[in-house]
Amino acid sequence: MTKNRLIYLPLGGAGEIGMNAYVYGYGPAGKERLILVDLGVTFPDMDTSPGVDLILPDVSWLAARLDRLEAIFITHAHEDHIGALGRLWPQLQKPVYCRRFTATIGKLKFDEAGLPLDQIITVDARPATVEAGPFKVQFIPVSHSIPESSALVIDTPAGRIFHSGDFKIDQTPVVGEGWDDARITDLVAERPVKAMTCDSTNVFSNHAGRSESTLGPALTELIKSSSGMVVATTFGSNVARLKTLAEAARAADRSICVLGRAMKKMIGAAEQSGVMTGFPRTISPEEALEVPRRNLMLLVTGSQGERRAASAQLSRGKYLGVEMREGDTFLFSSKTIPGNEREVLRIWNAFSEKGVNVIDDTGGKYHVSGHANRPDLEHVHRLVLPDMLIPMHGEHRHLREHSRIATEAGIASAVVTNGMMVDLSGDVPEVVEHVETGRIYLDGTAMVGALDGVVRDRIRMALNGHALVTVILDENDQPMGEPWVELMGLPPTGRGDRPLVETLEGDLASFIDRASRKLLKDDVKLEDEIRKVLRQVAMEEIGKKPEVTVVISRLTAE
Amino acid sequence: MTKNRLIYLPLGGAGEIGMNAYVYGYGPAGKERLILVDLGVTFPDMDTSPGVDLILPDVSWLAARLDRLEAIFITHAHEDHIGALGRLWPQLQKPVYCRRFTATIGKLKFDEAGLPLDQIITVDARPATVEAGPFKVQFIPVSHSIPESSALVIDTPAGRIFHSGDFKIDQTPVVGEGWDDARITDLVAERPVKAMTCDSTNVFSNHAGRSESTLGPALTELIKSSSGMVVATTFGSNVARLKTLAEAARAADRSICVLGRAMKKMIGAAEQSGVMTGFPRTISPEEALEVPRRNLMLLVTGSQGERRAASAQLSRGKYLGVEMREGDTFLFSSKTIPGNEREVLRIWNAFSEKGVNVIDDTGGKYHVSGHANRPDLEHVHRLVLPDMLIPMHGEHRHLREHSRIATEAGIASAVVTNGMMVDLSGDVPEVVEHVETGRIYLDGTAMVGALDGVVRDRIRMALNGHALVTVILDENDQPMGEPWVELMGLPPTGRGDRPLVETLEGDLASFIDRASRKLLKDDVKLEDEIRKVLRQVAMEEIGKKPEVTVVISRLTAE
Repeated sequence: MTKNRLIYLPLGGAGEIGMNAYVYGYGPAGKERLILVDLGVTFPDMDTSPGVDLILPDVSWLAARLDRLEAIFITHAHEDHIGALGRLWPQLQKPVYCRRFTATIGKLKFDEAGLPLDQIITVDARPATVEAGPFKVQFIPVSHSIPESSALVIDTPAGRIFHSGDFKIDQTPVVGEGWDDARITDLVAERPVKAMTCDSTNVFSNHAGRSESTLGPALTELIKSSSGMVVATTFGSNVARLKTLAEAARAADRSICVLGRAMKKMIGAAEQSGVMTGFPRTISPEEALEVPRRNLMLLVTGSQGERRAASAQLSRGKYLGVEMREGDTFLFSSKTIPGNEREVLRIWNAFSEKGVNVIDDTGGKYHVSGHANRPDLEHVHRLVLPDMLIPMHGEHRHLREHSRIATEAGIASAVVTNGMMVDLSGDVPEVVEHVETGRIYLDGTAMVGALDGVVRDRIRMALNGHALVTVILDENDQPMGEPWVELMGLPPTGRGDRPLVETLEGDLASFIDRASRKLLKDDVKLEDEIRKVLRQVAMEEIGKKPEVTVVISRLTAE
Repeated sequence: MTKNRLIYLPLGGAGEIGMNAYVYGYGPAGKERLILVDLGVTFPDMDTSPGVDLILPDVSWLAARLDRLEAIFITHAHEDHIGALGRLWPQLQKPVYCRRFTATIGKLKFDEAGLPLDQIITVDARPATVEAGPFKVQFIPVSHSIPESSALVIDTPAGRIFHSGDFKIDQTPVVGEGWDDARITDLVAERPVKAMTCDSTNVFSNHAGRSESTLGPALTELIKSSSGMVVATTFGSNVARLKTLAEAARAADRSICVLGRAMKKMIGAAEQSGVMTGFPRTISPEEALEVPRRNLMLLVTGSQGERRAASAQLSRGKYLGVEMREGDTFLFSSKTIPGNEREVLRIWNAFSEKGVNVIDDTGGKYHVSGHANRPDLEHVHRLVLPDMLIPMHGEHRHLREHSRIATEAGIASAVVTNGMMVDLSGDVPEVVEHVETGRIYLDGTAMVGALDGVVRDRIRMALNGHALVTVILDENDQPMGEPWVELMGLPPTGRGDRPLVETLEGDLASFIDRASRKLLKDDVKLEDEIRKVLRQVAMEEIGKKPEVTVVISRLTAE
């Protein structure tokens, strides 16, 4: 009989923050039954993915093994865990299990994409159990910065896995269930944990995490002491923070207005799914315009500086009729994700020009993280007592540090990054295969592979500009007229202030005049030579070699 | 008699960090004699200035008033204060005054640009005085993160100005003169300060700054406790830090090797100008290869993640034969400038993949800032006791906060940004004129105005891709063959996996077939319509509207 094995294979999220997608399998090698945990996106940036709308994990490995895939589980409704569901589900077509709030968000995505809503199945917390092939899966409530975040207990014949999901240790999270050590010790007592896959994002934060509930008093004080309008931004999905902010506003006798679709959607979903009650009454933007500024508090989207979100729009001018003025206060109740600093500071400076007081998290009084810091991770390691710890959800440096901590505590561990298939059946994790993984770009409505060259060409045009050459040859391979050059993204003049287009056209004309009959017959070679001449002349004129597209048109006698 | 006035006009550095260039003037309105203080650059980024090599201040206001410009003063040799000197001096052609170390760097730049070295004039510290028209200028040694940084005392008939330059309060700066309160109180006693223009970069740092000399023990301990090779990066111009690192390496019995041209140049300049003595002996990269790893320490460039610098190269593989391995240590003895996080983390993760231990400034043990923090600024305000304080060198938010602090302390102040001309003759700063200022991009060897549209086109191509259409018409305005489409930076297939080029060419061919004679006669309109059709079809096919270049060739009977 073939030996069964228990495998773990990250397709996204291991070696990066974002785009979480983790596969578990159980069965004979190469015939394991599979489940997928999370299906998130990550966000593009100008440096590496200009023009791209969203970045999705490449799930083609799974799509080629659909007969083995049992189900999809989503731990929570953050975009980096659920964001690709609407786009990629058509490739997978398996039932999606998640808790109520997550299901509400998932169904909104399915509805938008025209997918069957009945494929999203709401599951209660443990002891409720989903059976998916050889897997028995339970949702364990954990605290995080969105309602109903869950760890998963995944039982297999080869042992129990504890998949942490994103979590922090917060007994008093304002909205939803608090962290409860007993919940963990109970499940460990029931059956020991063979392997724990664990959130690593905050492993470099050396202080213990703080509870969401510690923010209220400082926020209330800040809002009370502000003379003008107060506007606060945070992640729309952090409904606990929104509630804390709204309650602080009420304590300061202010009316509350929510600006930004994403934020309203999340508040709606939290109320609809029953995880949040008692959110203070809000008013519409129209009503807000009638309220004295000192009695008004806005909650707005765009904490990461997104250009189209409410924060950025308010920093540039009016948004839905609302305008910030000298003496108003703008609060970033959020942390800037590395890479978003420039955009966030642009907003800050724009507000500064308006005389708005901007307050950020520098003092640590108005924001707490949703992830477990190093001491919290160590605490959970001790609670779960796994035989093996596999760090997940982190850049390589996070995974490595997390693995080091586990190893130091005597737990077997390995750094497992996207595409590494690991056998968890034995006493230590063992790499058994490397699977091709990658990133898919959603670009407009098209899907483009990250390595297809499309985005590489965009980056090249951005760095080097783009020159186009049109050459027309007659039926005898003789040039008709002179080559035509068009430039985009290139300086108009070269040395001695000569127009660059004219210099290029002149030099190309001379080159073609001198070209041999043989060269003029050969499109590929001619194109290549024209490109070389153009790049060389440009280098002399402007010190830069542009990207070049050559169009050779041949007229045939009709 | 016309009244004389004292004016201040920042052309760069006020409303941004970088590109410092400040004009002072004294004389009748519109006829003031002028001096320029500093002439720096700022650095491009992919988001706003892709492909650009350097960003320079636009000094055309000054260049149009050369008959009024007396001299240029450079406070210190950081690129954001001296970096544009070689490029822009030809437009200004006035003597450049600075201290010895700064002159050494300035002359290297002049030499490279083929400019007359005798135009850079070395000046000793106060009491040495440069007379430039109505101005008497003295250099006041201050501590910073580069040798011989100076404040300027600028005496005019209308009063004394104290221009702080970049500074921190450090009595024991390892290299060069320490900060000395007495130096300030002396000059204030001699003549009170009418206006202080003051560095604002660290106004949001609420703790007092720390001395460079506090770093040695921690660095020595770190290096001693490391088992493999140790590699440290910092700014090449921070020769005090380099000396501290080198001495710590010596204390740990390690040989020292410096990698990176910029760093060697700075160490050389510091030794040559006499500001640094006793730098430990260094070995060449070839010699370093013979030294056991545990006895080796490298000092390398690239603390901001620059792709071509030594740090990035070492993170990717070998550099000059040297390769980092598991168990080695890499130290960022530096702070990441906002906006450079992604590049710096890319290096960190690449080292992590090699098993290299990366240490950064998170704990505050291995780096101190070169700028005055808020309490230090307040201390200096109290020492200088100016009638007016004009914050400089900072983003708008820094200037505003700095101004607020001064106002609270009872000092007249104003937020003055690039292009605002302020009259300092009275009791309070008074805005008298707005001058056109801006940024010039050095792009290869060409100079391009930031608003010329060149870089805007690059950004558009990066975001939207670029489509080229070639249409050939005969002498009767009839199409010869079908339109030809080339795509760059666009997905190859549209809906239903149809090749995008074919769809576009087909739809454009139909459009041209149906086009009226009138339209086919009109190049401008035809081009416009072709662009519209292409963008609309692309929108349907890939959900994106590309940039479009249309080339219409008309063949005339020969």
